Amino acid sequence: MPASAAEVHEMKKAPAVDGVLPTILHRWSPRAFTGRAVSAKDLKTIFEAVRWAPSSFNEQPWRFLVGTHGSETYRKIHDALMPFNQMWAGKAPVLMLGVAKTKFSHNGDPNRVALFDLGAASTVLALQASAMGLAAHQMAGFDEDAARKAFAVPDEYIFGSAIALGYQGDPANLPHEQMLKQEVAPRTRKHLGEFVWKGWEKAAELA
Amino acid sequence: MPASAAEVHEMKKAPAVDGVLPTILHRWSPRAFTGRAVSAKDLKTIFEAVRWAPSSFNEQPWRFLVGTHGSETYRKIHDALMPFNQMWAGKAPVLMLGVAKTKFSHNGDPNRVALFDLGAASTVLALQASAMGLAAHQMAGFDEDAARKAFAVPDEYIFGSAIALGYQGDPANLPHEQMLKQEVAPRTRKHLGEFVWKGWEKAAELA
Repeated sequence: MPASAAEVHEMKKAPAVDGVLPTILHRWSPRAFTGRAVSAKDLKTIFEAVRWAPSSFNEQPWRFLVGTHGSETYRKIHDALMPFNQMWAGKAPVLMLGVAKTKFSHNGDPNRVALFDLGAASTVLALQASAMGLAAHQMAGFDEDAARKAFAVPDEYIFGSAIALGYQGDPANLPHEQMLKQEVAPRTRKHLGEFVWKGWEKAAELA
Repeated sequence: MPASAAEVHEMKKAPAVDGVLPTILHRWSPRAFTGRAVSAKDLKTIFEAVRWAPSSFNEQPWRFLVGTHGSETYRKIHDALMPFNQMWAGKAPVLMLGVAKTKFSHNGDPNRVALFDLGAASTVLALQASAMGLAAHQMAGFDEDAARKAFAVPDEYIFGSAIALGYQGDPANLPHEQMLKQEVAPRTRKHLGEFVWKGWEKAAELA
């Protein structure tokens, strides 16, 4: 079993594919974080990237609530996490909550793809963080009602992911055995034929 | 007004920010495409990248229906596009439709973030395409009912974006003036203070 954070990081890299952006292959979602803080400058750089995510009608429906360790924002986000995520995420120096406005600003119509576009922005966030030697672990496991109440989020905003951001740490410090096992397990994904189709019934693979 | 495709491409690049991945800054969504086909090898490379997008419980809820120009799949997707999008998207050599399974495969429970995760996969697609010198233009503007019927997509799948993929072309070939104007207009985004917050009521900017 790999011992150091560096060994785990190396082991988690997806196999190189000719022409695929290394950042896409090297991004992964650790649960072990070091205590090292993320600088305000680095946080800003990450959001300078997020800005340029694509969105329907260029609405940019995403908002990110960002809390650094010790802040009230951090505590509120941490309090809303599911108990399993609370076990590890409280070590991350930054916790965030992504929300999206479900109505278009230009005409008030429903934005069917608000959550989709928040997913786009959050992915840019994770990739940019990875490219900077940071790691972002997104969680769907949090209590939306609690988060909505804690931040008085208006009903017209929908929740995406909670995000732990920081520097990947030593897996040995994870709170229990099962979490350690997952942290050092090989990453798996579907084959192309399982999700690249020409039609529904035949589900014919393209490549 | 910039004349060539190359000039437009250069002009559309977001201003360089120290430390931000160039691919994130250079990705944009053209409407003008050349007739040049996308090779099967390049399509495969793009989906080798998409595979590694993050998703809740590693469900990978995304499926992509992929049609190359002249195919039945392409025709069906094109037929489902809104008239405005039909005016330009039919020049792209590849049309795709992203859908996501809204129930988890491991237990059948609803997947609240299926659309969010499809947004993640579609963003990886667009960034990888951009890194390869291709361009992906995502559209929310299509008739979902028509698309669902044309491909017999089961109800438990939700639609994300239709995607035109190809090589950016000469804007002068766009079908009308307004489209040409948009194609060569500067890209705009919100400032960080508009979407990076510490709390809701104060909406205090972090950076």
